[in-house]
Amino acid sequence: MSTPFSWIGELVTSIRAHKPLVHHITNLVVMNDTANITLGIGALPVMAHAAEEVEEMVSLAGALVLNIGTLTPTQIESMLLAGKRANARGIPIVLDPVGAGATRLRTESALRLLKELQIAVVRGNAAEIGALVGVAGETRGVESISLNADRTLVASQAAQTFSCTIAITGATDVITDGQRVLVVENGHPLLASITGSGCMSTSLVGAFLAVESDGLRAATAALVAMGVSGEVAALKAGGPGTFRSHLLDAVANLDAQQLQQSQRVRQA
Amino acid sequence: MSTPFSWIGELVTSIRAHKPLVHHITNLVVMNDTANITLGIGALPVMAHAAEEVEEMVSLAGALVLNIGTLTPTQIESMLLAGKRANARGIPIVLDPVGAGATRLRTESALRLLKELQIAVVRGNAAEIGALVGVAGETRGVESISLNADRTLVASQAAQTFSCTIAITGATDVITDGQRVLVVENGHPLLASITGSGCMSTSLVGAFLAVESDGLRAATAALVAMGVSGEVAALKAGGPGTFRSHLLDAVANLDAQQLQQSQRVRQA
Amino acid sequence: MSTPFSWIGELVTSIRAHKPLVHHITNLVVMNDTANITLGIGALPVMAHAAEEVEEMVSLAGALVLNIGTLTPTQIESMLLAGKRANARGIPIVLDPVGAGATRLRTESALRLLKELQIAVVRGNAAEIGALVGVAGETRGVESISLNADRTLVASQAAQTFSCTIAITGATDVITDGQRVLVVENGHPLLASITGSGCMSTSLVGAFLAVESDGLRAATAALVAMGVSGEVAALKAGGPGTFRSHLLDAVANLDAQQLQQSQRVRQA
Repeated sequence: MSTPFSWIGELVTSIRAHKPLVHHITNLVVMNDTANITLGIGALPVMAHAAEEVEEMVSLAGALVLNIGTLTPTQIESMLLAGKRANARGIPIVLDPVGAGATRLRTESALRLLKELQIAVVRGNAAEIGALVGVAGETRGVESISLNADRTLVASQAAQTFSCTIAITGATDVITDGQRVLVVENGHPLLASITGSGCMSTSLVGAFLAVESDGLRAATAALVAMGVSGEVAALKAGGPGTFRSHLLDAVANLDAQQLQQSQRVRQA
Repeated sequence: MSTPFSWIGELVTSIRAHKPLVHHITNLVVMNDTANITLGIGALPVMAHAAEEVEEMVSLAGALVLNIGTLTPTQIESMLLAGKRANARGIPIVLDPVGAGATRLRTESALRLLKELQIAVVRGNAAEIGALVGVAGETRGVESISLNADRTLVASQAAQTFSCTIAITGATDVITDGQRVLVVENGHPLLASITGSGCMSTSLVGAFLAVESDGLRAATAALVAMGVSGEVAALKAGGPGTFRSHLLDAVANLDAQQLQQSQRVRQA
Repeated sequence: MSTPFSWIGELVTSIRAHKPLVHHITNLVVMNDTANITLGIGALPVMAHAAEEVEEMVSLAGALVLNIGTLTPTQIESMLLAGKRANARGIPIVLDPVGAGATRLRTESALRLLKELQIAVVRGNAAEIGALVGVAGETRGVESISLNADRTLVASQAAQTFSCTIAITGATDVITDGQRVLVVENGHPLLASITGSGCMSTSLVGAFLAVESDGLRAATAALVAMGVSGEVAALKAGGPGTFRSHLLDAVANLDAQQLQQSQRVRQA
């Protein structure tokens, strides 16, 4: 059997060997889950948002996660401070534009971060990514309802517009850097039953970016890790509450061989 | 067998059909649980508190949840902005006056929200509701210890004073709009063993208000849903930690028939 | 069999009899877990951080927990207000200097709290406590990697410098008031697999301080309670996610006899 994407398993092994620090400036709703999943994959999370310390903190980190799920103007300023320092030091950034399209503050803040910072990967749902490139979609709060366009085309357009890797997650995930396109078919419907599974995926992208500079590979490996963990957790869950606990178990128990065997990745 | 309150089961079915957005401006301690229980009952939560976006966000919502558990003066201003917009649009509001009676800031902020906004339902424990109408009680932090008066009388007085539905929760729950009084006897002592079960009940009230304009019915159905879920979860729990996971499972697995069969509601 | 530290079990019984309020001004990442573990041990948590109410709230409390895990300058001011009121009322304070040594803001804020307030107990990891007394160590974000000195010597030096009890937690815990030194060998590696187990330990110290004025005893009992609970939870856990749920179960199910039989405490 060929394992066309053998780097997926290898990257998990690398995270566990290096234990990179992943600095988060992130939303308050799932801060605990995003910290725990970062620990589970083998990295070290730190949540720090005060303008007085974010530049110093990010300088210690292997990656920076920016998530606007409960944004305020003050928090966006901290994101810009941390992001500029990260860019100056060559530390990769992943952005989660939670709720872009739902309010002007969210859309404009995401676009401002994309304009003023060099972002390695943007991970969002279809409506959020669509909103960044002006493609009409329906978002209800932070939930994507529909997108009036082909997801792969929207992802490619966004990747070219922002010169970064775009990951649109959903029942299947589309990842593209504007040239290459990969599709991840791992996952389980229970992932959509808990709040913050998207944010957790973004945190995993941060952990993988800390050991892999190719954003397409880092994002793909993260989404495979999330999807496979969701599949494992679903076997033990009785609903969303127990699913969440088993999901964190599954991420921590992932190994390289399992990722190679369970991955469902294809080129689009 | 008669099912005197057949609307309880029907309302859950309605939430799941309509998936209303429930906008929360809420406390930081149980934000994750309140988001997850809102998803579990079939609605879509969004937590957004920045003054710059709350009016726009609430305009998209089917209900607004205001919870002062970790209030600040800035947050209260956002609540007033969102609340006024909600009132103008006919979007119902549920208020959780967490810790009213414990500090002046909490009592006064709750009263200010009740004065400046038209609130559909207030859900609190006995001491909190007592504090809003000047009835002496003992509150320890955010926990109700005792109330020096009959709970039904206090609830009725508050309902008349504030022209809204009042729900006092505890071992049994009393719900009144000042005219009608219903008592819910569902529930389990483990609900009191976890932080935020009151706040989670309030979020459920928000979800039901989004599909039912009668505050008495919405609050009663929410408290039955919470109580029945607690009973189911308790059968599987080994303590408060596993109880919380099973509670979220149980809410997500609720169905209309189960609610009809398990409800213990009576007129007072 | 002798039970040299019979007060450990007795203190748990005392917390459950008195249900003291434990006021937290704490970090946003594990606020839910710290509230739930405080409830589990038998105390009542309240999280309140607004400058407008912290003095009033702490006056109702049996202990004050200050945790700088997601500090801001505004939050530090609230900590000082609450702390001064606590000192004036004889209410004991426990400080968790999360990430001291990682950024200047964290180190300086922790030192300022130690200078302006009379702190009963400081609980931290080796690198954090080392940073407070200028001993070089390696901290990665909020994780302690190494300390270039003997932990007991560093703890003793810090205890003498700040005239308080110091608890350094890790695979084994060292607790000292500068004179007496106790070592706790309870615990399990899974405690290090979840975020906030240190913060949860600090909250337990707060609960014990509310019923025991000897900081050495309060901290030791808290760390035994945490360690024994971790051992019990590990027997049922499949990974960090389920471990966290079982940990909260185990804390709530602790009893005095179990603590006496399972404690592994010795004088250094």
